[in-house]
Amino acid sequence: MTDSLSRRKFLKASGIALGSTTLPVTPLIAEAATAKALASNPPEATRILANWLVESEWRDVPEQARYEAVRSIFNWVGCCLGGARHQTTDRAIAALAEFSGKPEASVLGRTERLDILHGALLNGITSHVLDYDDTHLDTIIHPAGPVASAILALGERLGTSGEDFMHAFILGVETECRIGLAVYPSHYERGFHITGTAGVFGAAAAAGKLLGLNEQQMIWALGIAATQSAGLKEMFGTMCKAFHPGSAGQNGLKAALLASKDYTSSNGALEAQEGFMFTYSDEQDFTQVTDELGRRWEVEKNTYKPFSCGIVTHPIIDGCIQLRNEHGLSAEDIEKVSLRVNPLVLKLTGKKTPQTGLEAKFSIFYISAAAIIKGVAGPNQFTDEAVREPQVVMLRDRVEAVADEAVSEEEAFVSIVLRDGTVLDRHVEHAIGSVQRPLTKEQLELKFADQAQSALPLSQVEEVMALCWQVEGLTDVGEVARAARAV
Amino acid sequence: MTDSLSRRKFLKASGIALGSTTLPVTPLIAEAATAKALASNPPEATRILANWLVESEWRDVPEQARYEAVRSIFNWVGCCLGGARHQTTDRAIAALAEFSGKPEASVLGRTERLDILHGALLNGITSHVLDYDDTHLDTIIHPAGPVASAILALGERLGTSGEDFMHAFILGVETECRIGLAVYPSHYERGFHITGTAGVFGAAAAAGKLLGLNEQQMIWALGIAATQSAGLKEMFGTMCKAFHPGSAGQNGLKAALLASKDYTSSNGALEAQEGFMFTYSDEQDFTQVTDELGRRWEVEKNTYKPFSCGIVTHPIIDGCIQLRNEHGLSAEDIEKVSLRVNPLVLKLTGKKTPQTGLEAKFSIFYISAAAIIKGVAGPNQFTDEAVREPQVVMLRDRVEAVADEAVSEEEAFVSIVLRDGTVLDRHVEHAIGSVQRPLTKEQLELKFADQAQSALPLSQVEEVMALCWQVEGLTDVGEVARAARAV
Repeated sequence: MTDSLSRRKFLKASGIALGSTTLPVTPLIAEAATAKALASNPPEATRILANWLVESEWRDVPEQARYEAVRSIFNWVGCCLGGARHQTTDRAIAALAEFSGKPEASVLGRTERLDILHGALLNGITSHVLDYDDTHLDTIIHPAGPVASAILALGERLGTSGEDFMHAFILGVETECRIGLAVYPSHYERGFHITGTAGVFGAAAAAGKLLGLNEQQMIWALGIAATQSAGLKEMFGTMCKAFHPGSAGQNGLKAALLASKDYTSSNGALEAQEGFMFTYSDEQDFTQVTDELGRRWEVEKNTYKPFSCGIVTHPIIDGCIQLRNEHGLSAEDIEKVSLRVNPLVLKLTGKKTPQTGLEAKFSIFYISAAAIIKGVAGPNQFTDEAVREPQVVMLRDRVEAVADEAVSEEEAFVSIVLRDGTVLDRHVEHAIGSVQRPLTKEQLELKFADQAQSALPLSQVEEVMALCWQVEGLTDVGEVARAARAV
Repeated sequence: MTDSLSRRKFLKASGIALGSTTLPVTPLIAEAATAKALASNPPEATRILANWLVESEWRDVPEQARYEAVRSIFNWVGCCLGGARHQTTDRAIAALAEFSGKPEASVLGRTERLDILHGALLNGITSHVLDYDDTHLDTIIHPAGPVASAILALGERLGTSGEDFMHAFILGVETECRIGLAVYPSHYERGFHITGTAGVFGAAAAAGKLLGLNEQQMIWALGIAATQSAGLKEMFGTMCKAFHPGSAGQNGLKAALLASKDYTSSNGALEAQEGFMFTYSDEQDFTQVTDELGRRWEVEKNTYKPFSCGIVTHPIIDGCIQLRNEHGLSAEDIEKVSLRVNPLVLKLTGKKTPQTGLEAKFSIFYISAAAIIKGVAGPNQFTDEAVREPQVVMLRDRVEAVADEAVSEEEAFVSIVLRDGTVLDRHVEHAIGSVQRPLTKEQLELKFADQAQSALPLSQVEEVMALCWQVEGLTDVGEVARAARAV
């Protein structure tokens, strides 16, 4: 990493222009090109990736990636329905719907249909507004939001088959996660919300695949995406957090549409001296974009939140709920709750006294108190009313948390001291919902139904769930979108 | 500057959260608040700026700012007309027009009318595509593009008066230039195209003013702008460069529309630890945003290009044309051309053998050869045909350039060696079009007419020019937009 940093400085100082050469890369020599490019660093990451995206065929995608992609899409649709009636969604529609063009894209869980660019924005917002969506743990990207929002809108317009939709989805997830890996954690620590900044590439790649872009157009699509990359972590706790995957989906789709009409961009948007990776991050690892394309699949590492708040809090919630259920705890029994966590937990969720449902998601103190008292941490625990419940507030103020570098991001230590002096300890190594302890199909369905019923009648919810599981076999993926509309 | 850098590191390391407090700031105590905030650093820059924007009244704007604003708007409309028929514009419209909503915004110089968000995008693209627009030299921001594009579209919809339009324009320019000043040059050197990244704030502020946002909504508008801030310098030489002011205009307008419906954002988007300034720049000077609001006006420093390429090349072009005209030079007379320039010139325009009109803008070698042979450097010198002209190519290959730290960005040294051994030297301290040597009204009109005739008949061009000079007195600024449509 230090090497990358010094390399950046060296290149800047010496004024060497990078990545704008135009050698063609065929699929057959992609690997050789990778090796060569790495030797004469940095590689033509943009071209290598674009070539792979264009050449990829559905039969090349292994079973495990397809399996996890269906689960990702299923979970994403459920989250869209869960967020459909949120105030954030209402306000975005109130502001923008009157500027929409042809109503070709359904807003899932609502009656509105919008043009595909606004449709992508809205479904991206709804899917993330409850902080209940999916997570690629190696980057903390929420992969489905930007990608599925873009291509369900586009797919509904085009009448795309379920197979093509799945293929584009998997390539989009691969693109955003690999670009995320290339700059994580430096990029994230700088202040960027990586779901927005990397997500726009995923949306562009997936939409570009559906539009049948050629290699040069795909390079341009990635470039137009790069030059729209945005999203600040400062927005956590406000309506703008959910705006990020929506905007990434909308702008990625826009990038692919522009590229399809030969709107030009840089040939080296990722790796050039003033391209995305050097400009948006202090460290970069190009091999994450170019290595093992088609041989490892990031979508296989996707996970689904059992709790509707930031993934970093999940080991704590899991531990709290385990102790609660095993010992039949109630608030009056408890003298004190002590948490020992990775420093990131307090950095992201260190609010002591949250006043709104949104703020509550950024308070590990509130979250652990609610988990102990309620035994769950779903959307109902993150309303403005819930956060003011006196019993929860009292317990919240008796929670203390210590940051410990020795504790990994996956694990947490919970210690509950009872009024009678008993101490209950729990070490959670991997939270429920992690790669190591994935949600079962039944748990995913319960989560889906619980959210979806806020937007649709139960019979319709069941129909949508069934369509989602069958997505690969659909002749027109628009069926899912239309089935998920409110009437 | 080094202080800022260490401060950033200190704040990051100590995990101190900045800028999210919520003290109200009334106009009366804004100045006191500035002083206090600077003492306990960093200040509430976002709130102080938003408060000023909301409270500002037209009568507070001095004559000199109004004078230069009219010239800025006049020049911007001319540039929009000049870029209206460019391939870049054609392709953007081919890709996006079919997704447009209600046709409420005219695309200047064309027959299309689009919804206001797409209208802002397109007029932003056309105004910048010839690299012929305005420049705020302290930041290299092209101020009118993002701001005027957003509010002419909105103003056409609302039937905004010329006075309100001018007021919003001046506030928008103030906002983008001050935010630019707060992070320039570090932000620019990192790789960001500041017209895009800072422009989005200007568009949001101006559109927010026209929408009558209150202080909290204006804070949110700036926040929603911050979290969309984008644009990479790597895109120079491609169609994406012109996309930046367009996208900034569109996204800034979107930010103001969302804020007008209470779509929430951070209260400290500029100054917070993970806000715009720390995330997008390695150095920051908050006082540039908060000091002397209402007492100095950045629009007064706006300048207009006499040549349709990057401002850094203008001293060279000026010197070349002066020597050419004074000595009646032609290509055959010349043995060699030697340039001595600020290092930025070669960094930005160091291409030796440009192959396209776009690339030619980034070649000081081509540019100086063309200036000597043609005596001008307008849009006609930056076509694909012009760049291949044998006589120009031959002279281009006899141009050499040396970067010299001792030469400022405003000046340049040209030395032409003739075949007979004569050496002609010219030192240009400030190029024509600079603050020191502003274009006259007549020069602006010649530039306008020269561009506009590619899109509109001469009689219509004259009508639009007259309306632009009278903009302050119009009851409906939409008159300008409608008059500038092609029929």
